Amino acid sequence: MKARVAIRAMALLASVSIGVLATPAALAEDGYALWMRQAAPASSVDVTVRGETPVLATAAAELRRALPADAGPVLLAAAADPEVARLRLPTATLGDEGYLVRRATIGGRSVTLVTGNGDRGLLYGAFALLRHLATGGTAASVDLTSAPAVQLRVLNHWDNLDGRVERGYAGHSIWDWWNLPDVRDPRYTDYARANASIGINGTVLNNVNAKADSLTAPYIAKAAAVADVLRPYGIKVYLSARFSAPIEIGGLKTADPRDPQVAAWWKAKADEIYRAIPDFGGFLVKANSEGQPGPRDYNASHADGANMLAAAVKPHGGIVMWRAFVYADTDPDDRAKQAYTEFKPLDGSFADNVIVQVKNGAIDFQPREPFHPLFGAMPKTPLMMEFQITKEYLGFASHLAYLGPLFEEVLDAKTGVGRETVAGVVTGAAERHKLSGMAGVANIGDDRDWSGSTFNQANWYVFGRMAWDPALSAEAVAREWAAQTFGTDPALLDQITAMMMESREAVVDYTGPLGLAHLMATGHHYGPGPWVADLQRPEWNPVYYHRADRNGIGFDRTKTGSNAVAQYAPAVARLYARPETTPVAELLWFHHLPWDYRLKTGRTLWAELVARYDRGVATVSDLRRRWDALKPKVDAERWQKTASLLAVQEREARWWRDASLAYWMSVNGLPLPAGVAPPGHDLAWYKAQSFPFAPGNPH
Amino acid sequence: MKARVAIRAMALLASVSIGVLATPAALAEDGYALWMRQAAPASSVDVTVRGETPVLATAAAELRRALPADAGPVLLAAAADPEVARLRLPTATLGDEGYLVRRATIGGRSVTLVTGNGDRGLLYGAFALLRHLATGGTAASVDLTSAPAVQLRVLNHWDNLDGRVERGYAGHSIWDWWNLPDVRDPRYTDYARANASIGINGTVLNNVNAKADSLTAPYIAKAAAVADVLRPYGIKVYLSARFSAPIEIGGLKTADPRDPQVAAWWKAKADEIYRAIPDFGGFLVKANSEGQPGPRDYNASHADGANMLAAAVKPHGGIVMWRAFVYADTDPDDRAKQAYTEFKPLDGSFADNVIVQVKNGAIDFQPREPFHPLFGAMPKTPLMMEFQITKEYLGFASHLAYLGPLFEEVLDAKTGVGRETVAGVVTGAAERHKLSGMAGVANIGDDRDWSGSTFNQANWYVFGRMAWDPALSAEAVAREWAAQTFGTDPALLDQITAMMMESREAVVDYTGPLGLAHLMATGHHYGPGPWVADLQRPEWNPVYYHRADRNGIGFDRTKTGSNAVAQYAPAVARLYARPETTPVAELLWFHHLPWDYRLKTGRTLWAELVARYDRGVATVSDLRRRWDALKPKVDAERWQKTASLLAVQEREARWWRDASLAYWMSVNGLPLPAGVAPPGHDLAWYKAQSFPFAPGNPH
Repeated sequence: MKARVAIRAMALLASVSIGVLATPAALAEDGYALWMRQAAPASSVDVTVRGETPVLATAAAELRRALPADAGPVLLAAAADPEVARLRLPTATLGDEGYLVRRATIGGRSVTLVTGNGDRGLLYGAFALLRHLATGGTAASVDLTSAPAVQLRVLNHWDNLDGRVERGYAGHSIWDWWNLPDVRDPRYTDYARANASIGINGTVLNNVNAKADSLTAPYIAKAAAVADVLRPYGIKVYLSARFSAPIEIGGLKTADPRDPQVAAWWKAKADEIYRAIPDFGGFLVKANSEGQPGPRDYNASHADGANMLAAAVKPHGGIVMWRAFVYADTDPDDRAKQAYTEFKPLDGSFADNVIVQVKNGAIDFQPREPFHPLFGAMPKTPLMMEFQITKEYLGFASHLAYLGPLFEEVLDAKTGVGRETVAGVVTGAAERHKLSGMAGVANIGDDRDWSGSTFNQANWYVFGRMAWDPALSAEAVAREWAAQTFGTDPALLDQITAMMMESREAVVDYTGPLGLAHLMATGHHYGPGPWVADLQRPEWNPVYYHRADRNGIGFDRTKTGSNAVAQYAPAVARLYARPETTPVAELLWFHHLPWDYRLKTGRTLWAELVARYDRGVATVSDLRRRWDALKPKVDAERWQKTASLLAVQEREARWWRDASLAYWMSVNGLPLPAGVAPPGHDLAWYKAQSFPFAPGNPH
Repeated sequence: MKARVAIRAMALLASVSIGVLATPAALAEDGYALWMRQAAPASSVDVTVRGETPVLATAAAELRRALPADAGPVLLAAAADPEVARLRLPTATLGDEGYLVRRATIGGRSVTLVTGNGDRGLLYGAFALLRHLATGGTAASVDLTSAPAVQLRVLNHWDNLDGRVERGYAGHSIWDWWNLPDVRDPRYTDYARANASIGINGTVLNNVNAKADSLTAPYIAKAAAVADVLRPYGIKVYLSARFSAPIEIGGLKTADPRDPQVAAWWKAKADEIYRAIPDFGGFLVKANSEGQPGPRDYNASHADGANMLAAAVKPHGGIVMWRAFVYADTDPDDRAKQAYTEFKPLDGSFADNVIVQVKNGAIDFQPREPFHPLFGAMPKTPLMMEFQITKEYLGFASHLAYLGPLFEEVLDAKTGVGRETVAGVVTGAAERHKLSGMAGVANIGDDRDWSGSTFNQANWYVFGRMAWDPALSAEAVAREWAAQTFGTDPALLDQITAMMMESREAVVDYTGPLGLAHLMATGHHYGPGPWVADLQRPEWNPVYYHRADRNGIGFDRTKTGSNAVAQYAPAVARLYARPETTPVAELLWFHHLPWDYRLKTGRTLWAELVARYDRGVATVSDLRRRWDALKPKVDAERWQKTASLLAVQEREARWWRDASLAYWMSVNGLPLPAGVAPPGHDLAWYKAQSFPFAPGNPH
């Protein structure tokens, strides 16, 4: 791991504590304000803006809304403004979206200048200034320069048109499709504000498991109304497109991408959308994956499909985000290999307004996965990172699991191609693609606090911040988020940041340590189900992934097994080829090993496994105790909800640990190491647990 | 219609306008505060409470929370308090829940005294005082005495365990079953406050189309957590019980109510529930209706089923609310007759802790139905009124339709038994039953404004107020609600009250005038579908209800037809037997008449029908204009949402009118009267409209 960039304002936090947010415990808060809790100023603040675009008006309004009264005068002006240009500031490298915020004298007046080359740069600069002040910085000390390393910073809403959110745990969809376009919920504006404050510039409104209906005229009008609200915040709207829409709503007999009628239908459809949404971003497509239609239905390739759609949006400046998350109904090979197998040969065959969207790992958003082997393997194709912000496999909305360390771990991973990292692939730094992007599967719902818990808000936050700058450290972002969310008391921030930084590893420990994965119960994915072996397709079953038997455990992905390691560049493949050189945290992802295999830790594999389950539970208990101690420093409502959820998490961590150990013991026949507590129930009890109303199931 | 009781405080509104709520336009409001928008007082108010029950503590806390600073000292003390008793106030008739609020001198000090015989009386008195002040009354003028005319004032939540609300249009269920019992959403407390403020004292948490799971240990614990929150507000929790639960979760082979094992299972289940919820209210049951299991599956009667459950809860003081909404799969008779046919013979055979819950009309919550013939027909059985607050057939959450006039019309209806009204049956005034009750199917969801629109809140409000006092006038309650919701400006209140009072009749006009009913589209019940004729069961089809053909329209329920009129008492049956003596508004409910039938209005039936559709649309256009004119007097957020929804309503009223007329013309072959606008599209267009994602469908 390289040293990561710390956030400048954080340096101030140890010594400065500003009054604005100093007494959070005195307020009752419901979490709706997210990390933007600045109160409306008592007196009007002095904000001047030069120029008249809707985005500039937003930037000025946001400053007037949240600047502290003592912030002094602020001037928003483009770098091209003659008086700003005269200052010869280093704005050349800021691009369209970058900003520079510093003290300057303009027209004989000392102001805080927010500048950049485009109006979105000024908007992001305005939010950067607010962030600087809310995290303990002063107006006198402000000196911020930043430009995004990634072009497309996009949320993916897995939101269905009936309002249900697939894998959503924070209530219903915030998109009230039924009342749109007539009713524009004020919440859409607050959503836009939150996203713009962390640099997100695009959002895909509907589920990748898409209905064709979203492309009909009434739903285009609804999407257009949302786009109207988001536009002044610099956010473009995208739609997930169902590949078979030409059949379902177009009356055609085929959706074959090589059929001229199909291409013409999509072109007309794109034209129709752009008439309603002139700055429409483009399409996201899940094709030939988990039952979705796609070009493979017609023996055409993913590139054929993507390029046909890309041609439809190209005249309007639109793009296509084409997902690489595929696994075939019929392919008996290791599921982890299939995306690479299918996409790697297509490198170089995608149109220049297509970007291929790749999940961070090769299976599916597990608490820990090695980075996806496609990163580094498709140099001629821009690859978009897809992270999951919603915690499908990390305790739904209930568990505290800060995902910053997960994102950081993946982004920092070396692909083995020269000195390139995954972040380098995503930013396109190495390959200089026209497009770059990062997508996050949103954890947003209509719960009052948006994300189902206060700490889940941090995952939305860190996604946006790392999409802007993948070099930011997870810890610095945690501290930055906490300062805005809970106030700038340094002792409080030390505690909360530490809790956050330990939390994801705890989830790994109690759900699937040592590189185990996909051990959850069926359908809803809630709770443990390592014993599940009866589902129709082999790769739906947890036993497919852990392969535990009396002799050992783990998926052999070396050349004696599926040889998935060969999909990585040689420098990486070499490490993963042998257990000795594979990181312990990823060990059983790549290797099937005997239960008595001796680890570098000195323990046997079995003992280490047990120890990690116990460590996970112990960490959660510890987080609970530490949160209890913070009660005097946090407002009552948010403290109580978090305390309640930590109690849930402690119980469920124990459940995961106990159920898993009961099952492993039934397989390996081994006793628990001395002093280890036995599971609370027998295996049959754990298997009998049933949760028919667990949230977030797919339709 | 008899003269209805006006609300005392209203008399003040014309002359008094208090500062507390005087500038609503200045505030941005999201509707969450409902009709309780009183701000927290700037200085502490002087509230003294004698006694220490949780309900008394709530009463005092609510006063401290919302009393205006200039309200003067308030004393909460029971009528039995020696110092209060000395005043010889007329508290004998107040019962457990009634209150008396007036100025008094206690211990030499002039106070506003809130008193009653039980702590719930004091709670309701506290809210009555707040209502008095928020509607323009002064502390000096306060003199309030009231006791509820109905014992069980209960909301029915048709909320499923997966969070979806059947026929709910205001988002997801507020009950977060998934996170209960650990997380107790502060919203539960606000829900309790709102209900207590209007006298509601019970709530059925789950859908009458019940899952047996709601009676398992985990869900009992969840319900108990809700009960803990509601209890200090005087609200009891009830559960809908699935009749076949002994099979589904009890492992029995039968749910036959005469089987001793079944009775024992329910008894043990009741014991288990009461251990968790000592003041559990009891069960609500939908049996042998629309596919639900019930005693008829075993050739037992509804009384057999109800009495068996009643015996289980009886030792704990619980009750059973047994729904009379039944219609048999196999009965070829007029659906409107079936509940009477099945229940009337059971009069006198129900246990004394059973109350039979009867919908206001014999079909299903249509915009207008004649009162249900069971009212007046079962003198030996307490009958509970079931109103629908959620607007399944009155434009979902979007349309403005104040239901006060509907409730009033039903309650005021004369049963034909002596001078008895439906209200008299419901209150038990005539028959002196041990139980009396009124149920409202809730329109509450997790939308920020609870009910999907500001005006829908009024329907929740008027249900509670009329359940407390069925003699209140719809207009007085509208004005009272509006004063608390929008402020006490008399001109504003005149306008808003008038709009509300016209709104329901407009919906009748544009959806089903002259006694037509059940003309909606299939499944979701959204929009018109009078042409639907292809559903499996005859009584699912609109054509079953309107029976229109080339010669005429309407359902002959006289002796030449189904003879449903004979189910009414002779004095009423006589009127309904002939078109000349049937109210025009109910005409086609009872009679099949030729299109050229001449009405008392002077018009032919066809011309009158057309005129009423047009009147409905015109009224909505007018409501829209009048709301536009109120913009300066209403806060921006609530004004805008209502304005948007009125635009939807105007469009959809026209749609209903146009689609209906296009269909009737296709049936009767008649031209439109001169000067009437033709439908915007042909009939095929209306038939082709499809809304797969309309909200509120049953599971």
